[in-house]
Amino acid sequence: MLQLRPILFSIGLMLCTIAAAMLLPALVDLADDQDVWKTFVASSVVTFFAGGLLVLFAYDENPPRMGVKEGFLLTTSAWLVIASFAALPFLGHGLDYTDAYFEAMSGLTTTGATVMSGLDKLPRGILLWRALLCGIGGLGIIVIAILMLPFLRVGGMQLFQMESSDKSEKVLPRAFELTLAIAAVFVGLVLVCAFLYTWFGMTGFDAICHALTTVATGGFANYDSSFAHFESHAIHWTAIVFMMLGAMPFVVFIRTLRGDRTAAWKDVQVRAFVGFLISVSLIMALWLLFTRNISFFDALTLSSFNVTSIVTTTGYMSDDYTRWGNFAVGVFFLLTFVGGCSGSTSGAIKIYRLQIAHMLTRSHFLHLISPSRVVTLTYNGRRLPADVPFSVVAFLAIYFAVVGLFAVIYAGLGLDFVTSLSASATALGNVGPGLGEIVGPAGNFVPIPDTAKWALSFQMMLGRLELFTVLVLFRPEFWRS
Amino acid sequence: MLQLRPILFSIGLMLCTIAAAMLLPALVDLADDQDVWKTFVASSVVTFFAGGLLVLFAYDENPPRMGVKEGFLLTTSAWLVIASFAALPFLGHGLDYTDAYFEAMSGLTTTGATVMSGLDKLPRGILLWRALLCGIGGLGIIVIAILMLPFLRVGGMQLFQMESSDKSEKVLPRAFELTLAIAAVFVGLVLVCAFLYTWFGMTGFDAICHALTTVATGGFANYDSSFAHFESHAIHWTAIVFMMLGAMPFVVFIRTLRGDRTAAWKDVQVRAFVGFLISVSLIMALWLLFTRNISFFDALTLSSFNVTSIVTTTGYMSDDYTRWGNFAVGVFFLLTFVGGCSGSTSGAIKIYRLQIAHMLTRSHFLHLISPSRVVTLTYNGRRLPADVPFSVVAFLAIYFAVVGLFAVIYAGLGLDFVTSLSASATALGNVGPGLGEIVGPAGNFVPIPDTAKWALSFQMMLGRLELFTVLVLFRPEFWRS
Repeated sequence: MLQLRPILFSIGLMLCTIAAAMLLPALVDLADDQDVWKTFVASSVVTFFAGGLLVLFAYDENPPRMGVKEGFLLTTSAWLVIASFAALPFLGHGLDYTDAYFEAMSGLTTTGATVMSGLDKLPRGILLWRALLCGIGGLGIIVIAILMLPFLRVGGMQLFQMESSDKSEKVLPRAFELTLAIAAVFVGLVLVCAFLYTWFGMTGFDAICHALTTVATGGFANYDSSFAHFESHAIHWTAIVFMMLGAMPFVVFIRTLRGDRTAAWKDVQVRAFVGFLISVSLIMALWLLFTRNISFFDALTLSSFNVTSIVTTTGYMSDDYTRWGNFAVGVFFLLTFVGGCSGSTSGAIKIYRLQIAHMLTRSHFLHLISPSRVVTLTYNGRRLPADVPFSVVAFLAIYFAVVGLFAVIYAGLGLDFVTSLSASATALGNVGPGLGEIVGPAGNFVPIPDTAKWALSFQMMLGRLELFTVLVLFRPEFWRS
Repeated sequence: MLQLRPILFSIGLMLCTIAAAMLLPALVDLADDQDVWKTFVASSVVTFFAGGLLVLFAYDENPPRMGVKEGFLLTTSAWLVIASFAALPFLGHGLDYTDAYFEAMSGLTTTGATVMSGLDKLPRGILLWRALLCGIGGLGIIVIAILMLPFLRVGGMQLFQMESSDKSEKVLPRAFELTLAIAAVFVGLVLVCAFLYTWFGMTGFDAICHALTTVATGGFANYDSSFAHFESHAIHWTAIVFMMLGAMPFVVFIRTLRGDRTAAWKDVQVRAFVGFLISVSLIMALWLLFTRNISFFDALTLSSFNVTSIVTTTGYMSDDYTRWGNFAVGVFFLLTFVGGCSGSTSGAIKIYRLQIAHMLTRSHFLHLISPSRVVTLTYNGRRLPADVPFSVVAFLAIYFAVVGLFAVIYAGLGLDFVTSLSASATALGNVGPGLGEIVGPAGNFVPIPDTAKWALSFQMMLGRLELFTVLVLFRPEFWRS
């Protein structure tokens, strides 16, 4: 039997937290004399009421242990339900519920695709709410990715299971301590980032908002022109560094703080990720240098910022890179699929899956050449668990298939080929911008048909929860006892 | 040690066959009083000379047995070398060697993408040569796919290994007999198709050429407007049926001829293939019915023809379906990836891989829900060999990755996003037409830069030989003894 009570209880607790978070933007708007503070309070009351009812109804003195099935159901329904309440404050700003849900899901999945425009003139409360959603969703997904997904064996994440028997790998064995440590690192990064943003000239409010969406690799900005609004190179480079940090495995930070100074360097995923970012940024900088009349440093800043933004699945932009020529368009489209590291806030396929796929392909070719040869596969010094190879390549195949199928849905709803395909890829990858007039870096998701907005919201959740967590619920076997 | 002599000997024999085939169009042009007959004779002489030298040089009274490595090298180099000689006759028609090689590779891989225009006014010899290349390549790939690829364990083809110990599955145990049977079926289909084409109003010459490119799912037509040139519905339906037959597993035909009347019906791949074609054709017919003012039968004919043409990777068109609206564009782009059945002339991913991927995904989800459960996987009543699951999903992942990477190359060479992506997909899938002005069904590959044409030729070969056969040669381990 599926244990629904602990699931409902957990969701109830989360809703109460969200309700509390809604009071922060209410205070800001109240201080600014913005009438919309009432929407936040009303939303908070509704959310707290719903959450409180769930907590009361589902409380159990001796809660039953949650199994694998409960894990899948809790994770998926948490994102679905929280988004539906987190959408409420947006209703006070002229958005209908479809748009509000889209914006909330985009924030909570740290995608950063937006249906709001005229950001520069919006009350500060709603801007803070968008940033908070990124922060909450970002922190949430790191905890889920480190504690839950390895246990659920989703898409090769079993590779990052913390075995309590394995002393050398023991970071912090207990879930609660680990959650606190992750939160501490996350908040620490946000604070340092905000401090640097202020130092280099942002207002305090902008600094807090953008620090939240930077470290969460969310990508919501307070201005329609995103980071092109800020002229300071120092601000851009701060963003580059903190987007990178947000896309790194948080377990590595915890190890570093616990005294293992070389933890980041020893991690093959981090090395490949940084190496990849540097290489692609250099290539695009050279491309800009050859095709435009700018200095090398300007080219490098432009290139590094936008490449890092897409690869880490943040989705800021400091320039409309779709005007950098066909080559750039092709590269940025491919970058939409890459993603950062496991156990981070970034989405898409992720570096470790690409590394494992490469390793598996290599060993498969060896098998083709000499079928009798046995190859032992290791990753980061650990032997690959038996079901990881299939998990990883199946993830890749399903990922591409989902991009293709949803692209056809969007095309069927009337969107052109480039918009359909890139919207599908950018939503599933939790990146933000796609290609073309509507979903491109200079566009806005508003003109998209309502049905497509719901489908995009679904894709964002699908990508955020690494496909399998959600798709498994569509199997009839899941619902049989 | 890699045994090069038997490889060179085999290629020599193939070149002599190609040289002989070149005399057919020479005769046609001679009869038509077309001066270009001399090009065919000259090409034939050069090819025969090269082939003869190889045969003489590499002849061995006691040829050593060929192993797996020799199999990979022979298959890939056969397509490379034959294309380079098959290109020669095109030089007599104003094509430079790049274009000539592209056209020859397009024919031999039964892709059907063309750089020749004004087809309606070309001498008949060169039209026959294009059709013959499709025929030779089509027959060649069926033999390779049935006899060689299962032995090389390429991309899940080990599933179709004929085990001599397995009596019930024994179709015709010996390779030579099997090759003859395949050739007999192929020629038989071409003759029946040509007869029907003539019956329904084509000239004898058009009937022969189009029958060759229909059954080989090649797609070269004798007219710039492809099958839109023919107004007869009967001709279109004949093409639909024979494209379908060309994309079916030839082993099934041989079984049927040997007395197993229900062989086709019993084959799960055939059932899924036919079911898929009917479903998609109906959906597109309804779409046409709703968006255009035509009769249901006209809509069904248009839809079935173009859908069947793309799914079987033939590449004919009876209408510019990219003008059927965004939904149609999206669907046709996805169809570029599907392909027909294993052991046929069609390319792309193929139905059995999609079926196995679906089955594996399902069993993977069962594993996620209840990790202790053991599921035995079977396909067509046979237990899945242990390395098939990984082979198949790795094929899918590499397939999508190759499409993406080559798309970026084409974008880097200056082509727009839609052209780059669809050209990459259509070349790798051996389909023919892509999307956009240049590579779309109403376009022509001529304006593509030379470098891109070579890359496209390479992709056609890569797709035709199921990726692994070619890619394995790029592993340094292959060349170590």
